[in-house]
Amino acid sequence: MIPVVSIVGKSGSGKTTFMEKLIPALRRRGWRVATIKHHAHPGFDFDVPGKDTWRHARAGSSTVLIVSPGKLAMIWDEIGREPSLEEAVAMIPDADIVLTEGYHWARTPKVEVFRRGYSDEIRSSPELLLAIVSDVELESAPAPVFDLEDAEGVAGLIEEEVIVPALGEDRLDFLVDGKPVRLGESSKERLMDLLKGLGGEAKEEVFVRWRRESKKRKHG
Amino acid sequence: MIPVVSIVGKSGSGKTTFMEKLIPALRRRGWRVATIKHHAHPGFDFDVPGKDTWRHARAGSSTVLIVSPGKLAMIWDEIGREPSLEEAVAMIPDADIVLTEGYHWARTPKVEVFRRGYSDEIRSSPELLLAIVSDVELESAPAPVFDLEDAEGVAGLIEEEVIVPALGEDRLDFLVDGKPVRLGESSKERLMDLLKGLGGEAKEEVFVRWRRESKKRKHG
Repeated sequence: MIPVVSIVGKSGSGKTTFMEKLIPALRRRGWRVATIKHHAHPGFDFDVPGKDTWRHARAGSSTVLIVSPGKLAMIWDEIGREPSLEEAVAMIPDADIVLTEGYHWARTPKVEVFRRGYSDEIRSSPELLLAIVSDVELESAPAPVFDLEDAEGVAGLIEEEVIVPALGEDRLDFLVDGKPVRLGESSKERLMDLLKGLGGEAKEEVFVRWRRESKKRKHG
Repeated sequence: MIPVVSIVGKSGSGKTTFMEKLIPALRRRGWRVATIKHHAHPGFDFDVPGKDTWRHARAGSSTVLIVSPGKLAMIWDEIGREPSLEEAVAMIPDADIVLTEGYHWARTPKVEVFRRGYSDEIRSSPELLLAIVSDVELESAPAPVFDLEDAEGVAGLIEEEVIVPALGEDRLDFLVDGKPVRLGESSKERLMDLLKGLGGEAKEEVFVRWRRESKKRKHG
């Protein structure tokens, strides 16, 4: 799996603003960054009225993709369940690091944004807390504290603690019905051997998706 | 792979309008529909100014996801290559049929929209042409002709000719570096056996993605 760091903090504490500084700081260091934002409210809306593709969605298409030479966009509606974080990460085509905004409940390393007037206490588990970003002096903080403006410092820490240690590791996502399954070493080896064998000249990745056959709905 | 039908025709011929009728007609028959729209021009834009997630993209995130309990959206930017149709189909989480708008060059069954004042001749290869949808009388047409308003009739034909014949077939996507690879029967069997074995109780699908490890960029 691509390594993940979660930017957490209370609503209004400035997570998005901090990410707007952190993303380019990581890019300047040469890393490809992907981001995942969690919306607690179902049915968030980002229709662009009148554009053709959203006409497909309004007509009842449950998944809409737009493909162009330089870009791909997908909306998957009517999920019926919330996709897991691991499922979302597995869908990302290409990145060295994934930053999430939100997902405070995930077992991911955390950067917690603590801002005067918005935050009252540090909420991340100490063992997952990589750094605190704050505009106040924090006494006996359970992790290194950076200034709200110091995205460079946090980028350096993420590089050192999360990205570099994961270099050279195999990045394998194995999901069954959307849920991650941890494979034993010998299963993993068999799978990797087979994938690399069948994949022949694979330079970057092998992607496999098996789905149960469709059922005959209409005719019972 | 999920079966695909491409709705093709000249610009202005009414492809999107026809799809707006075809999608619900297929849904009424009990099928889950996904759609793919091809944009010939790179850099199409569907930013929603001011929304947080697009702030991630503007800050340099190459892939942006939004996840909520009922919906998932992804924008993959800076692809550097055009995703293949097979790659786009493999990304679709769930559907019985995929309709594409455009992709006249693909080896997919076609429904060609022929409209007075916009179209001059039927352009699809006869062996791929499933149906013609038109507002004019066509003499010696190379495929069944339906009225522009008769999405029900076309839905019935797609069901009979494309969806039902694919029922009960294994739906396996195998992509290497984004390109589909056709596996021989024995390779396919070995892979399916291993996936089903490792997947244990898989009810609907097994998803595997192996990616080459990240390279140490910054430090050479």
